Amino acid sequence: MKPIFQSADEALKGAVADGMTIAAGGFGLCGIPENLIVALRDSGAKNLTVVSNNAGVDNFGLGLLLQTRQIKKMISSYVGENAIFEKQFLSGELELELTPQGTLAEKLRAGGAGIPAFYTRTAYGTLMAEGKPLETFDGREYVLEKSIVADLGLVKAWKADKAGNLIFRKTARNFNPLCAKAARMCIVEVEELVESGTFEPDQIHLSGAYVDRIVVGGKFEKPIEQRTLAGKVTVKGFSPIREWQAKRIAQEFKDGMYANLGIGMPTLVANYIPDNITVTLHAENGLMGVGPFPEEGREDADLINAGKQTVTALPGSSYFDSAESFAMVRGGHIDLSVLGAMQVSEFGDLANWMIPGSMIKGPGGAMDLVSGVKKIIIMMDHVAKDGSSKVMKECSLPLTGKNVVSMIVTELGVFNVDPKLGLTLIELAPGASVEQVVAQTGCPVKIATNLKLN
Amino acid sequence: MKPIFQSADEALKGAVADGMTIAAGGFGLCGIPENLIVALRDSGAKNLTVVSNNAGVDNFGLGLLLQTRQIKKMISSYVGENAIFEKQFLSGELELELTPQGTLAEKLRAGGAGIPAFYTRTAYGTLMAEGKPLETFDGREYVLEKSIVADLGLVKAWKADKAGNLIFRKTARNFNPLCAKAARMCIVEVEELVESGTFEPDQIHLSGAYVDRIVVGGKFEKPIEQRTLAGKVTVKGFSPIREWQAKRIAQEFKDGMYANLGIGMPTLVANYIPDNITVTLHAENGLMGVGPFPEEGREDADLINAGKQTVTALPGSSYFDSAESFAMVRGGHIDLSVLGAMQVSEFGDLANWMIPGSMIKGPGGAMDLVSGVKKIIIMMDHVAKDGSSKVMKECSLPLTGKNVVSMIVTELGVFNVDPKLGLTLIELAPGASVEQVVAQTGCPVKIATNLKLN
Repeated sequence: MKPIFQSADEALKGAVADGMTIAAGGFGLCGIPENLIVALRDSGAKNLTVVSNNAGVDNFGLGLLLQTRQIKKMISSYVGENAIFEKQFLSGELELELTPQGTLAEKLRAGGAGIPAFYTRTAYGTLMAEGKPLETFDGREYVLEKSIVADLGLVKAWKADKAGNLIFRKTARNFNPLCAKAARMCIVEVEELVESGTFEPDQIHLSGAYVDRIVVGGKFEKPIEQRTLAGKVTVKGFSPIREWQAKRIAQEFKDGMYANLGIGMPTLVANYIPDNITVTLHAENGLMGVGPFPEEGREDADLINAGKQTVTALPGSSYFDSAESFAMVRGGHIDLSVLGAMQVSEFGDLANWMIPGSMIKGPGGAMDLVSGVKKIIIMMDHVAKDGSSKVMKECSLPLTGKNVVSMIVTELGVFNVDPKLGLTLIELAPGASVEQVVAQTGCPVKIATNLKLN
Repeated sequence: MKPIFQSADEALKGAVADGMTIAAGGFGLCGIPENLIVALRDSGAKNLTVVSNNAGVDNFGLGLLLQTRQIKKMISSYVGENAIFEKQFLSGELELELTPQGTLAEKLRAGGAGIPAFYTRTAYGTLMAEGKPLETFDGREYVLEKSIVADLGLVKAWKADKAGNLIFRKTARNFNPLCAKAARMCIVEVEELVESGTFEPDQIHLSGAYVDRIVVGGKFEKPIEQRTLAGKVTVKGFSPIREWQAKRIAQEFKDGMYANLGIGMPTLVANYIPDNITVTLHAENGLMGVGPFPEEGREDADLINAGKQTVTALPGSSYFDSAESFAMVRGGHIDLSVLGAMQVSEFGDLANWMIPGSMIKGPGGAMDLVSGVKKIIIMMDHVAKDGSSKVMKECSLPLTGKNVVSMIVTELGVFNVDPKLGLTLIELAPGASVEQVVAQTGCPVKIATNLKLN
């Protein structure tokens, strides 16, 4: 039987100290240990290093600990939702160690599994690999990443039994099991506590071996960051040519494929997948089988996509934690991903996460996706607002991945990208001409002999 | 919807070729894809490399493919149950790459997760680390292990839905999800096939993203290797002094501990754990919460321990795959393990897996356990049959682990072992004397000032 506490304050007693490294579960505000975070704030512990995919929002989740300046350093994949964060980071008060989302999940999983370091393709050729050892396996270069072990894990589960076995709910699982595994001491807040033996042993998500203390959360606010409802979705800048791009990309989908659609414009592609094929959509926060946005009143804070929008799950869907989700990505089990871009090079280098001089928000899962998914299609404008081409000899912005793009679809046409042979125009968009393509492309572009016109 | 086949022969059609690497699930005969293995034999494919924890028995499982000489090489952790194996190995017909069980599980998991190599403490200082790169992290040395990717995965699951999502049953899960993940093509045999949407998405063990073909198995023999029933267990060589050893070791258990008991004599210790404490027993084949041996008629081929004996599961138990099981071990989440030994050195080196000149059976999970579990207690005879001490300056047999033993309990007494300070006698067994201990120990032994007598 695990120690059971009546309040989060009591559960933290004796477990927290200044200068600790704390791993906290959650993706965005979904599945965060909200009561334990409030109790951590109230504990007054200072100079904390916090490992968490995100940093909360200004007045909820880890944002509370930023308000009180209890956090010295964040290790995260994306911190774009938090103005206090930006202020403290820019003033030098707060350190930030950005880590690709899948690498972060795997670092925690490895830390919990006694693996001090592992090689990954993710971030190869980017700023995030700088200074890290590289090694070549089977002719491909990989980056050595060290695991993370935390002093304390703060975890949110749906249910626990008194032996500490945990069951998570929908996409609220995310980083929670990994934070439990990577921590020397793990405190869990749950919505429901049951007797040992209540759970079917085959349905337990995390063994009580990882759990030290349990508290039944007083209340759960579960705020929703991006409440998104069926039929009410608008994507900024949607136009007939965008629709052409989305439809054209949808033709790349084959029956039985697993695909991941990036945040924003790429999500539109889902609307144009032919009815006679089945494509299963992956959300990297832990869902295979993403369904449409929910009807009003059916939204569920525990069921979001990687853009933090409320979604539904289709029949045949499954949930999993973030390490498993990115194992699918990194291991090549996702067939296709559609992403936006700032710049793409002639040989498929991609820049889509960072503009020097702007506040860094982090790569989220983009570096993992481009390094792992079998085919990367970029959906973007051909030309930037300043008139310069976004398709160029060398990206000037920091890379998301090197030689990762297979196809680009812009308002001018469809381009195959080969890491050795470069760019080939295979199809012209309606109203575009070869001359226009050549003029607006910042690198050599071959024209396919069987160029398709529209 | 995945392709569904009516027979294992059809399911394999076009998927098998000579010289392939095939990863096959199962632990012992538990959870093996028995129908697919028969079909693989009947396919006639030759020169196969088979990755599987074990090699079946002579007339069942992978043993069938040894009979027909279709296997060129086995990558396994333990091959001790198979006489044909031994014969072919000794004649040089069959190659064998022995791999510690947890490393094997992690190699498959890594292969499926796009991780080409990882560091582990397992096998450090042993024959199995020879020729492999070593690296020091936080002052401790680790071995670099490369992942495994297979051409074909043969997997047994309990149930599948038509989207390929899988649910496994009890300890028949073991290596199956890992073989699915590590394979470029995965064929699954199931006992039951249901419509998509039947499974609760939170209860799916493996996403259909890993599955290519499904066959509903014609019949399942599920032979039991070690049918073991309550009240009928005899351990060879049990005696009053053995009982003293077991009782003494049981005193090391504290309330709330998680422990792993080695095969044979160490299992006896479970009988002496005080009634007023709760110790949860881990079986490395995928069960936390091992219960007593079953009553006659209640034995279940899908529920065995690491010794392949039929067991039961206690309330609050949970099942998991072999990678997760050894993540618990390697990550230090198991508090205590009791193991037998052939030799232990003054500074805690352990030899308990291999006698040169005898047929090599493999380390199974022993190397993983000794490198990962917090405290290793050895239960053994002080002196070998030839009269030589089993406690010695340097082990002469190949090591299972270096500086891994914390305590030795023999018929002469209880010894603390420190990796730097060496051996200290802290307690004398009934009838033993300090003189006897000194005379029968092959290395210096300090006598505790507060030596306990019995």
